[in-house]
Amino acid sequence: MAHIDLPEGLPGIVGPMTAYPESGRALNGLAEVLLRGPSPLTPAERELIATWVSKRNHCTFCTNTHAAVARAHYGDACGVVDRVLEDVGAAPIGEKMKVLLAIADHVREDGRLVSDADVARARAAGADDRTIHDTVLIAAAFCMFNRYVDGLGTWAPTEPEVYRQMGEMLAGTGYAAALS
Amino acid sequence: MAHIDLPEGLPGIVGPMTAYPESGRALNGLAEVLLRGPSPLTPAERELIATWVSKRNHCTFCTNTHAAVARAHYGDACGVVDRVLEDVGAAPIGEKMKVLLAIADHVREDGRLVSDADVARARAAGADDRTIHDTVLIAAAFCMFNRYVDGLGTWAPTEPEVYRQMGEMLAGTGYAAALS
Repeated sequence: MAHIDLPEGLPGIVGPMTAYPESGRALNGLAEVLLRGPSPLTPAERELIATWVSKRNHCTFCTNTHAAVARAHYGDACGVVDRVLEDVGAAPIGEKMKVLLAIADHVREDGRLVSDADVARARAAGADDRTIHDTVLIAAAFCMFNRYVDGLGTWAPTEPEVYRQMGEMLAGTGYAAALS
Repeated sequence: MAHIDLPEGLPGIVGPMTAYPESGRALNGLAEVLLRGPSPLTPAERELIATWVSKRNHCTFCTNTHAAVARAHYGDACGVVDRVLEDVGAAPIGEKMKVLLAIADHVREDGRLVSDADVARARAAGADDRTIHDTVLIAAAFCMFNRYVDGLGTWAPTEPEVYRQMGEMLAGTGYAAALS
């Protein structure tokens, strides 16, 4: 049971975004810019950062949803997303993404933990200013989305098919279209 | 030194919001809705929640800025903001605000910590669904803003007058006008 009255049958963040559409539109607008707007990071890479932060924050709804979006973007041929979730060190992603996921995890724990050494490693692996900026902001934003979803005690479906369908939809039409 | 190149002389979040205006506009739009849009909580109360979360997250720039906005809204006649920051238990705010600040702190630590008992206490003190929703989302959003500011290593001015002026400006014209 959610902590407040929410529309029946709407999963996770969709409930409060629908019940409170003014903030819902602002949140979806931010997600659209961060995850699908211009960036040196692909939408797949950005959804992977969102998934990773959500998993580390133990937010079931956001982890499953953004893992499904990331799988849809990657095409999921080599199971990148699931291999990152199982063991990031052994996952088939390049050094740059590994360093960016480490920075995202520092942001998640406490922004002050991001060190000059983290940033130097990211630059050595090919990350530019914009890449570092976008990584920090996406990680920070999912610290918000995760807390919004869990702080209200929203409902997380258990059926993988529900997430697969949401993932396909969000990878296709995006966030701005989700609540217009 | 910030972790990425940012425009000279712009304090805290203003630097990356100016350098990356597309996300800056989305962030300011969200702040405007959350802190100044329709809500059963006054702008002063909402800025107090933002200040409290930022202080608990040790984000100097956000704490000083939103304390200044809250002081401007409250009129600061009885020093409410500073008394909350010094000792929330003894501060001259009602029971409802004390419970909402406790909920905000649970959201800040981990959204899953918000309990049915927290919400029951808030309702007994007069909070409705919208009040609980807005408290959770403001607390969650400042977990993002704090991490964006500190994860990029932005510059926090030390002069109280700088914050006082920003506080007066933001209390007067708001967030949407800050980056248009």
